Amino acid sequence: MESESGSSVSLKVFNLNCWAIPYMSKHRQVRMQHLGDLLNQKNFDLALLQEVWSERDFESLRQKLLPNYTWAHYFRSGFIGSGLCVFSKHPIQEIFLHTFSLNGYPYKLQHGDWFCGKAVGMVVLEICGILVNVYVTHLHAEYNREHDSYLAHRVAQAWELAQFIHHTSRRADVVLLSGDLNSHPGDIGYRLIREWIGLDDSYLETQDFQGCEDGCTMVPNNCFVSSKEMESFPRGVRIDYILFKAISGFHITCDALTTTTGSGPNDTTGHSLPLSDHEALMATLSIRPAPIEHKRNFTRDPEAQASLMDVLHEAWTEMGLGLAGARQWVYSTGHLLSLGLLLLFLGVGTMLFEDIPWVAEALFMVLGVIVLIGSGALYLTSLHESKALYEAQAEIELAMEMAKEAQPEVVELYTNPPLIRTSVRFKVKQ
Amino acid sequence: MESESGSSVSLKVFNLNCWAIPYMSKHRQVRMQHLGDLLNQKNFDLALLQEVWSERDFESLRQKLLPNYTWAHYFRSGFIGSGLCVFSKHPIQEIFLHTFSLNGYPYKLQHGDWFCGKAVGMVVLEICGILVNVYVTHLHAEYNREHDSYLAHRVAQAWELAQFIHHTSRRADVVLLSGDLNSHPGDIGYRLIREWIGLDDSYLETQDFQGCEDGCTMVPNNCFVSSKEMESFPRGVRIDYILFKAISGFHITCDALTTTTGSGPNDTTGHSLPLSDHEALMATLSIRPAPIEHKRNFTRDPEAQASLMDVLHEAWTEMGLGLAGARQWVYSTGHLLSLGLLLLFLGVGTMLFEDIPWVAEALFMVLGVIVLIGSGALYLTSLHESKALYEAQAEIELAMEMAKEAQPEVVELYTNPPLIRTSVRFKVKQ
Repeated sequence: MESESGSSVSLKVFNLNCWAIPYMSKHRQVRMQHLGDLLNQKNFDLALLQEVWSERDFESLRQKLLPNYTWAHYFRSGFIGSGLCVFSKHPIQEIFLHTFSLNGYPYKLQHGDWFCGKAVGMVVLEICGILVNVYVTHLHAEYNREHDSYLAHRVAQAWELAQFIHHTSRRADVVLLSGDLNSHPGDIGYRLIREWIGLDDSYLETQDFQGCEDGCTMVPNNCFVSSKEMESFPRGVRIDYILFKAISGFHITCDALTTTTGSGPNDTTGHSLPLSDHEALMATLSIRPAPIEHKRNFTRDPEAQASLMDVLHEAWTEMGLGLAGARQWVYSTGHLLSLGLLLLFLGVGTMLFEDIPWVAEALFMVLGVIVLIGSGALYLTSLHESKALYEAQAEIELAMEMAKEAQPEVVELYTNPPLIRTSVRFKVKQ
Repeated sequence: MESESGSSVSLKVFNLNCWAIPYMSKHRQVRMQHLGDLLNQKNFDLALLQEVWSERDFESLRQKLLPNYTWAHYFRSGFIGSGLCVFSKHPIQEIFLHTFSLNGYPYKLQHGDWFCGKAVGMVVLEICGILVNVYVTHLHAEYNREHDSYLAHRVAQAWELAQFIHHTSRRADVVLLSGDLNSHPGDIGYRLIREWIGLDDSYLETQDFQGCEDGCTMVPNNCFVSSKEMESFPRGVRIDYILFKAISGFHITCDALTTTTGSGPNDTTGHSLPLSDHEALMATLSIRPAPIEHKRNFTRDPEAQASLMDVLHEAWTEMGLGLAGARQWVYSTGHLLSLGLLLLFLGVGTMLFEDIPWVAEALFMVLGVIVLIGSGALYLTSLHESKALYEAQAEIELAMEMAKEAQPEVVELYTNPPLIRTSVRFKVKQ
């Protein structure tokens, strides 16, 4: 509920990755009911949800929350949906969706990320005359931290998300990003987003935190979390966030942050069943007017700027590794395509000889078609991957060029070697 | 070349759909060379190109133009690329790419749009202290005007383009959109873009026009244009545009607009071979400071607002027709999927009976797999199509709600019946 005391505005924000996959997530319907009860009872200003994969679940929740959350939107994308939705007490003035260019591989059926339209959803609210741009997102899952084959995709998504917010929030007084970043606080994805947009982390900013140790949002104590998954992280991991910033003219702080705490009788939810395999985040933010500052773009404190350059360089490098892999796949599957064509020709060729049994002909043809279709699909996937990573790298390169040009003194503080470019795409002013 | 006289800044902009498909477009390499010569000779500030499908062509052009156009970017997306690129005399400060959610069907191999990553590319320039957001785009082709199966896709793209510009240009002083919209001036796509962003059309605004009759950009006189295609349009069609607006604080006008004029000895290019199957647009724009206006969002002149409402309603309806079609496909292909499963089960079932020949078993299995894969792919395509159209409709509905709420008097002028919603997604403030 929004409360106004003097000129300060309070904003209560709820975030949860709901883990609501029809037929697969345990106790899904009961948990969604509990979630509805909690949201009605606690009366937040905004509830930002991820992994609501069924539109029916959204619709049931919407019906239940209607008396308290008059505005709602479910972001539709991909084949299954984005899983993202927003419930708001305050009128939603505008909505917009940006689907990420890269999102896993179609042949990784067991992971399934490719089939969801992973995206960033944006809603624009006006709260007591303050223009708030709210972003909700969910980045690609991390299935194996040691051998993370999706790292380049996740970093590219993080960059796309950061760029989207950077370019669409120019008129906003307050920017709010919440969701499951599938990145630990030390990971490049999280740091890239925070550094490029200049966002604060509610967990790090608040003086009043209650919840899981270290602010974790996936904990071994939660009965839906596999203990094997948490082997390397006995306290759990922090991968869900509420991040914010205020543009010049406003100041924003996090007065309090609470998380749910896994299984067992739960003060926050009132039930012993956890709401999800992730913990919910509940932040109370306070927005108040501040003096307007006039500063040029990119002119940050030199150390902060050097740190941004380091992060950009690291992201660029990760994408480069992904790009090298994708190009290798383009090359290999290109060869497989030729093999498929050869098999087809052989199938046709054998028809000319009467003494070759028709089974051999058919085998060549069927094999040829299978190899052609399979390698064709893989070729296209890798081609798309390489294009998207190349584009993201180009954007980052330009960002670094511009930052260096604006503050050449930063180059001295910048610890990384100069970029070894795969191709010079930008000619810097001579 | 930028020229500054007093406080007015002149901007020379070039736009062309290059029709540069490797192995398919006639005289591609010669035409690209001529294009390079022309761009070097005429010294534009900005050249915005579409259908440069080969990155090698871009690279050759970049090398050739380097002395005059120091900055360049090719937008990479999809499997083939976006075909979009920008050459600029002025430093490119930022780049960003938004790929459209919908872009034809993968099984329409003969059209191929699906394989390109049709998108809107954005570059941010600072010219004499004026922040210019430049957008280049290419919407889905129109293959059959009478039975246009891609209309809903093109309208959804137009809306996404308009939304992207609307949200990313908040800090810009000047907005420039150029490209091949594949929409005639009366078409809903063109009107939607112009009305939602408030763009002016250089052809309609200029007092000094030279070129094809009616400003057409595809003319029967061009030897690469099939006369059959132009049967219904003896003068040609206008589908390529340079559109612009200035944000409060600046005023922009189009001093002159020229197009190339098809085949024959050509004063503009100096060659008899046309540059492309499209005509090039060359605009001289003039930007000068203007008094700052303070006005609320959505408060337009009531008649303009009613006209916007009409356009939004028309776009919503077109998308609704597309959505109904997509849902029908989801339904039908869902049934086909069941048939595929049935065939597979039959194949497995026949194995239990020894007197059934193995050929019959194999036939059931192969047929089952083919039907499953085929209908599965079609099912996913239609599902994705319906999600994207639904999302675009929801955004438009909200835009109409907000406009009506801001200016209720417009409702009287608004000639269309109220929206019949497929589902109530937004609860208006009670």
